[in-house]
Amino acid sequence: MTHSGSDPHSEPGAGAQRWTLARRAARMNPSVIRELLKLTERPGVISFAGGLPAPDTFPVEAMRAACDRVLRTDGAGALQYAASEGYGPLRDWVARSLPWDVDPAQVLVTTGSQQGLDLVGKVLLDAGSRVLVETPTYLGALQAFAPMEPQVEGVRCTDAGLDLADLEARAPGARFLYLLPNFQNPTGRSLAEAPRAALSALARRTGLPLVEDNPYGELWFDAPPPLPLTARDPAGCLYLGSFSKVLAPSLRLGFLVAPPALLPKLLQAKQAADLHTPGFNQRLAHALVEGGLLDDHLPRLRTLYRERRDAMLAALAREMAGLDVRWNRPEGGMFLWARLPAGMDAAQLLPQAVARGVAFVPGAAFHPDEADRDAPRTLRLSYATATPEQIDRGIAALAQAIASHRSPA
Amino acid sequence: MTHSGSDPHSEPGAGAQRWTLARRAARMNPSVIRELLKLTERPGVISFAGGLPAPDTFPVEAMRAACDRVLRTDGAGALQYAASEGYGPLRDWVARSLPWDVDPAQVLVTTGSQQGLDLVGKVLLDAGSRVLVETPTYLGALQAFAPMEPQVEGVRCTDAGLDLADLEARAPGARFLYLLPNFQNPTGRSLAEAPRAALSALARRTGLPLVEDNPYGELWFDAPPPLPLTARDPAGCLYLGSFSKVLAPSLRLGFLVAPPALLPKLLQAKQAADLHTPGFNQRLAHALVEGGLLDDHLPRLRTLYRERRDAMLAALAREMAGLDVRWNRPEGGMFLWARLPAGMDAAQLLPQAVARGVAFVPGAAFHPDEADRDAPRTLRLSYATATPEQIDRGIAALAQAIASHRSPA
Repeated sequence: MTHSGSDPHSEPGAGAQRWTLARRAARMNPSVIRELLKLTERPGVISFAGGLPAPDTFPVEAMRAACDRVLRTDGAGALQYAASEGYGPLRDWVARSLPWDVDPAQVLVTTGSQQGLDLVGKVLLDAGSRVLVETPTYLGALQAFAPMEPQVEGVRCTDAGLDLADLEARAPGARFLYLLPNFQNPTGRSLAEAPRAALSALARRTGLPLVEDNPYGELWFDAPPPLPLTARDPAGCLYLGSFSKVLAPSLRLGFLVAPPALLPKLLQAKQAADLHTPGFNQRLAHALVEGGLLDDHLPRLRTLYRERRDAMLAALAREMAGLDVRWNRPEGGMFLWARLPAGMDAAQLLPQAVARGVAFVPGAAFHPDEADRDAPRTLRLSYATATPEQIDRGIAALAQAIASHRSPA
Repeated sequence: MTHSGSDPHSEPGAGAQRWTLARRAARMNPSVIRELLKLTERPGVISFAGGLPAPDTFPVEAMRAACDRVLRTDGAGALQYAASEGYGPLRDWVARSLPWDVDPAQVLVTTGSQQGLDLVGKVLLDAGSRVLVETPTYLGALQAFAPMEPQVEGVRCTDAGLDLADLEARAPGARFLYLLPNFQNPTGRSLAEAPRAALSALARRTGLPLVEDNPYGELWFDAPPPLPLTARDPAGCLYLGSFSKVLAPSLRLGFLVAPPALLPKLLQAKQAADLHTPGFNQRLAHALVEGGLLDDHLPRLRTLYRERRDAMLAALAREMAGLDVRWNRPEGGMFLWARLPAGMDAAQLLPQAVARGVAFVPGAAFHPDEADRDAPRTLRLSYATATPEQIDRGIAALAQAIASHRSPA
């Protein structure tokens, strides 16, 4: 450690010598997607790249009324420090809203479900611990776990779900399997009842703990998804939920439901992380959901996203004819997963697509194992924020980019 | 890992066998203070135990107006996902409000300054890293650092500040010194200009990085505190600030100012921790501070807390006569630090004090080294939430408890 200058502006990077970074800092890197999104935020570009919900769905007026009510009713209480566990009435509501027998004492309110992942990593992962994830999986989970320096292993997956033989081979000694069974980010795929039941049985039989992340479950199109894995084996599962997709992301409100044996350590990690989730926001959310907002709001969200999914499916069928592109049909959520012809690389395609006015996220970033042969061909398309008309134009532009990429002029 | 029952209610602790806790979980324990506070929350007990600001100071009406304005002006923007760095105009305001040359790009908005401590721990501490702290120090910092498994060392302190000889002996190889130079929690003490300048010079000379936590700095009574340590050596210091004491804790809004070399890793840790601090709350705070609220609000806070400190000092002088109790005279903030006669233990005194209707926090919990001989005699008294009349009664009750504890009936 050498002495360095006092003015950060006079020497670029001055001070770096004095500071020693933790070893785990080497695992922390800017999100590839975040960097990509900057490229795609050019005016006029139709973006299927974001992971944002449609802002026109936010219940702005109801929120305004809730702010007023909460501050008029108990302004001082709403603005004071609060319990690390979360606001009691909101924990009660969460427990009641879930389709299995949940004691409100098992509910911990988190600052977004992203914080739930951070707490799970802190409490359950040592350096070198083996964590199983779907292939591909939610990038934010990989980022949340990374500071704890685990060894992350991708379980083979098909459109129907996890390859149970591969999962069983990897289960012994793994700390947990992290998965999103409903309308997964990035693929939009879901676990149907039969593979879900089989996965649950395998987890019980092998003693493999599950961390079930369910931010999109309420955004179903035709029928509600099958019962959560946690409902089938509450002692063996840790469940993460979120208000980001059903109310508004900016409140940063999520929750976790943990087996009683894990709750004390998760609570302690929560207290150390940010003392508590903003109490004002928790009261706002409680005022909204207790007031019945979701009764109308969720059907409206489902209809909107279904229309946009349908528009994207129709546009893909129309525009991709003959291009050897494949895609899935998500039954809820915000994302659709597509696969380019063999040999084509979505990351190489992206700049050409952006030049034609459309953006997406190459799928490779979501793959835990860099060696995955199939990864470079994949891409994630969000239909959440574009109108059907924009979807038509965007998919047409994407088809042109693919066609010209296949046979360069 | 053995298979366990599926129903958490049928077997107490069922499922525990399936879950393996991270090694660091052994370092996570419920806050002693938190447990104590439960004891002291009996109706009728005058509490000097809390660390809460006075709720009657919260700007409830201004907050209501700000909610209205923010949601009417750009409701969708205020409710959508936002940048991990924080809301640009708020970062600009923070940079402008600080008394040294801060580039807004160095400002990271955090979910309370507690999260700033979590991020500092993640980015700067490995298992076994040596961290220096004041004796005593803020318990929340010890909790935030604990999951990273550092070796925490308390630097000897007097009422005037840190023992620089002890600090210099411990400096080599320490990752940083964490300190609260203004109206410290728990002692209420401050570093005057001369010891502050000497500490800054020592840190530069030895290359010891400083993590400067300043949640109470604006709550000065007679004169603003001396220039922050960070202002004297920005490349060698990381600065943490908070809106909890000047606006409202429940917004969970803090910030850190880091040397440019550290910012990218702190930002990545922030993104992984909770994506971003609630954007709605950031816009509310910005609307309030940009609208000039603090111009009137801070003088009002200073007057209120000064009156309460004065009431407590007067009551102590009156009631503790002849009891061999000592205390300091904080020049700002919320806390006063007292010392019982030799041989008396504040933790043993507490139940007797509560029985007489007054509560405090025994000081031992704030000491990083359990071996500290002086620690059991100390106690923290908060004058922030009690009225002068309650302070009079509470200190009288405390004096009675001490007198009867010295000479048991």
